[in-house]
Amino acid sequence: MTFDEIMSLVQNEMKLVEDALYSNIDTNVKVLDEVIRYLVSSGGKRIRPLLTVLSAKAVSSESTKYIELASIIEYLHNATLLHDDIIDGATYRRNIPSANNKYGNDIAVLTGDYLYSRSYILLTDIEDIKIQKILSKVALTMSEGEVIQLISTAKLDTTLDDYLKIIRSKTAVLFSAACEVGAIIGNVKEKEAKCFADFGEKLGIAFQMSDDLLDYIGDETETGKNRGTDLKEGKITIPILLLLELVESDVKEKIGKIILSENIAIEDFDYIRDLIAEHSIDKMVSQMVLDNMNEAINALSTIKDTDYKKALIALANLLINRKN
Amino acid sequence: MTFDEIMSLVQNEMKLVEDALYSNIDTNVKVLDEVIRYLVSSGGKRIRPLLTVLSAKAVSSESTKYIELASIIEYLHNATLLHDDIIDGATYRRNIPSANNKYGNDIAVLTGDYLYSRSYILLTDIEDIKIQKILSKVALTMSEGEVIQLISTAKLDTTLDDYLKIIRSKTAVLFSAACEVGAIIGNVKEKEAKCFADFGEKLGIAFQMSDDLLDYIGDETETGKNRGTDLKEGKITIPILLLLELVESDVKEKIGKIILSENIAIEDFDYIRDLIAEHSIDKMVSQMVLDNMNEAINALSTIKDTDYKKALIALANLLINRKN
Repeated sequence: MTFDEIMSLVQNEMKLVEDALYSNIDTNVKVLDEVIRYLVSSGGKRIRPLLTVLSAKAVSSESTKYIELASIIEYLHNATLLHDDIIDGATYRRNIPSANNKYGNDIAVLTGDYLYSRSYILLTDIEDIKIQKILSKVALTMSEGEVIQLISTAKLDTTLDDYLKIIRSKTAVLFSAACEVGAIIGNVKEKEAKCFADFGEKLGIAFQMSDDLLDYIGDETETGKNRGTDLKEGKITIPILLLLELVESDVKEKIGKIILSENIAIEDFDYIRDLIAEHSIDKMVSQMVLDNMNEAINALSTIKDTDYKKALIALANLLINRKN
Repeated sequence: MTFDEIMSLVQNEMKLVEDALYSNIDTNVKVLDEVIRYLVSSGGKRIRPLLTVLSAKAVSSESTKYIELASIIEYLHNATLLHDDIIDGATYRRNIPSANNKYGNDIAVLTGDYLYSRSYILLTDIEDIKIQKILSKVALTMSEGEVIQLISTAKLDTTLDDYLKIIRSKTAVLFSAACEVGAIIGNVKEKEAKCFADFGEKLGIAFQMSDDLLDYIGDETETGKNRGTDLKEGKITIPILLLLELVESDVKEKIGKIILSENIAIEDFDYIRDLIAEHSIDKMVSQMVLDNMNEAINALSTIKDTDYKKALIALANLLINRKN
């Protein structure tokens, strides 16, 4: 299945989600309305809401509350992006100026706060205490993940365990919740909802790992992001972690110096990128991604085969094999 | 009743709130734990949780959930302070370095996010959908209020209506909710809870107006804040608004220039402070504070007379007559 084929399967539902993303903004404060519209209209592929919709459809949900839930998930995602971009000092996102760049950090902080609150209000309207607990826990874990990432910045003693904890917290928990709440609102048993949660979590880990690899080997014109951003920001991700384990101590020292330096020259980045190629780090990361993907797909093994389940798996494959 | 007498009336309850403020932090991320402990232990008078506890006791609440609620209210308050201090570039709060000053803006943003999420999780545990709706709406309104304040910065055409909207959003809604949820958890009828909400709202307005006056005429050694902070930050508050209405156009122009200038000299502040004294602005503001206070007290007129109701009114009087 291609991405377009997946989308055509839930075209009406995703259109309703899109409408909800605009109609739910609901503020008389002009600048808040403007910033949120800017965020929402700047697109992205709506992966997380798509996971919610497909999960709900895969369990034949009779309730249509998954539409609202999907829009809440996207709001929470946008709220974290707003605050992360401030912390990373990001100037661009999705090929256009980031909100903190365009509107300033102060407005970006407050718009993030607004979106969190708006999400909780919408969530309260859904009146499902279990889903409320899951999503407020997700928001909490994401903020913890961002703090762990922040204090691990340029820390050469970051371990693979630290890294896994960070990507689980900042990415996988929201992927997991997106799938799980779709299943829960579809009124399945706890055990079945857990399968969707596991699928989302493993997919989230695979997605973040492949994203972190793309930051070294991706095609800039396709990713819309500058390569080497993680290195510049001192983020110790999976390619660097594996590389540091494989190289001799003198090379290790040199990589350390690059990570700790204030400004990273293009030659420094090229040096590390070449090392990554030389040591076949891309293949190693791809294998780890694949392992997580297989675990994700296995998690759905007991779920009834439908086009929606097929679409979830196809989407997962597209996400980890993307070039952008 | 003195403040100590009020506190001794609910000594056990406020001790439990204090314990909850620490025990509810609940994170394994060391720096988050540290920052929140720093905030919680830096004190403040716990006015908002005290309002919740007194309101619950005033309606003879059988449930003890108001303890947890009071701690949630204080968390929400601290979360907004964290983000406000970033936006204001504040370096001190309560006589000690502000969290953004001590730990950096990035950590302050994320700790605020953590506290919001933690509040919602605790709120979900209380399982009262009405209270959830009230408090998520409060958080939303506070973020809107901060945005309106931000975009009104140094705007000389700010009106009294704008000002009232700002102080209602950033201060009065939380005071109002603190009282209302205390009454609701005490299981009173909607009409009675509304009396507490009205009391809190009017008190919040009176409190913020008197606070804004103190920024011009307060005693620095007692307030623990530098005077003139609002003027420096370009915040158009009630003393300035009233002054601009009373002075001749040349003086008005001079005040305008001071507000718009990058750095405000001590003579400029003294000039405005003298004008405020000369035009008896302090008396005018005090009268507005008193009017709101009377409305606040009237709102409680149908509530049964108890020591707790007396304490609420005594607390209100202390708050608006404070020198710090």
